Amino acid sequence: IPVGQRSDPALSNEHLIKRAAALVTDSTQTLLSQTTYALIDSLTEYTKAVYTLLSLHKKYTSLLDKMNSSEESAICQVIIGARVQMKKLQDEYLKYEASWTRAVSLSEMAAEAAYQAGADHASVTVRNHIQLVQIQVEETRELAQRAEALLVASQSEEIMKTVTEDKKHPPDEGSPEEVPESYLRED
Amino acid sequence: IPVGQRSDPALSNEHLIKRAAALVTDSTQTLLSQTTYALIDSLTEYTKAVYTLLSLHKKYTSLLDKMNSSEESAICQVIIGARVQMKKLQDEYLKYEASWTRAVSLSEMAAEAAYQAGADHASVTVRNHIQLVQIQVEETRELAQRAEALLVASQSEEIMKTVTEDKKHPPDEGSPEEVPESYLRED
Repeated sequence: IPVGQRSDPALSNEHLIKRAAALVTDSTQTLLSQTTYALIDSLTEYTKAVYTLLSLHKKYTSLLDKMNSSEESAICQVIIGARVQMKKLQDEYLKYEASWTRAVSLSEMAAEAAYQAGADHASVTVRNHIQLVQIQVEETRELAQRAEALLVASQSEEIMKTVTEDKKHPPDEGSPEEVPESYLRED
Repeated sequence: IPVGQRSDPALSNEHLIKRAAALVTDSTQTLLSQTTYALIDSLTEYTKAVYTLLSLHKKYTSLLDKMNSSEESAICQVIIGARVQMKKLQDEYLKYEASWTRAVSLSEMAAEAAYQAGADHASVTVRNHIQLVQIQVEETRELAQRAEALLVASQSEEIMKTVTEDKKHPPDEGSPEEVPESYLRED
């Protein structure tokens, strides 16, 4: 680490700081691009997983009356698997979101340092880049939130359907297919 | 700006972020070195200016009784010039101190981003670099503060001397050399 040494004594401190600050904006922009890509990528994968789970819920709800015990168990296993996968992808996008947030902060600070060092062009470029990626991430986030809202709605629907089913078959009696006779006997 | 594009699709997001974070630490280290150099350089120049002023004060104080009006006026002009120069160098080092502080903050954030991205070596290198320059700056600052303390002491000394002089020649009578007779007449 060349601390306190000028790479070219002919250049002024001011000029060297300006150049170094511009270099920092270059590298923070690369980090910002990479974290943005990773976040958008992982958010998109997560959104797909939410839609997968959503379609499974719909299928389960539509078939609820027509399935036997083993069919229901099979589709439940698939739903559980899809939920695990969605959770995994959510953790991943949250991790990349943290990286992205750090990259944005770093870029903002680099833009400020460049501006103060007189590297105005580099500063403006970074600020524009930050704005651009914020819009991109916001759009991708909205798609994910729309999917999440649909999932919540489908779950309420499913719960309502289950409640309707439960009026016919109380839950403490076990699965309805297994004990319909005992239920009828106690009525 | 290649937003959301991988430079090599074979590489994982994680790896690309780690590499980009390491690059950020490289560039922040360059900025940190340059701003440290500039700060130490300007602090040293400022310290020299304080010592120059200090020696002028001492000279002025030692010659106070032996100078005539024009000699005193001449040395006062030199002192005023030295004060202006000291103030100019102080402004300069304060400007570089602000740059340096920003570079330290940027480096700390870059170290954190590198650590979170798994670039542990880069993170540790930056943290060590920060510690090193903080020690260097602190030492240089102490030299400046010692000079400032001596200057304050010399000014008190000068004031005391002036007060002693003033007992013989009250200040509202103008410069002692100009009006000793009127002073004596009023006694």
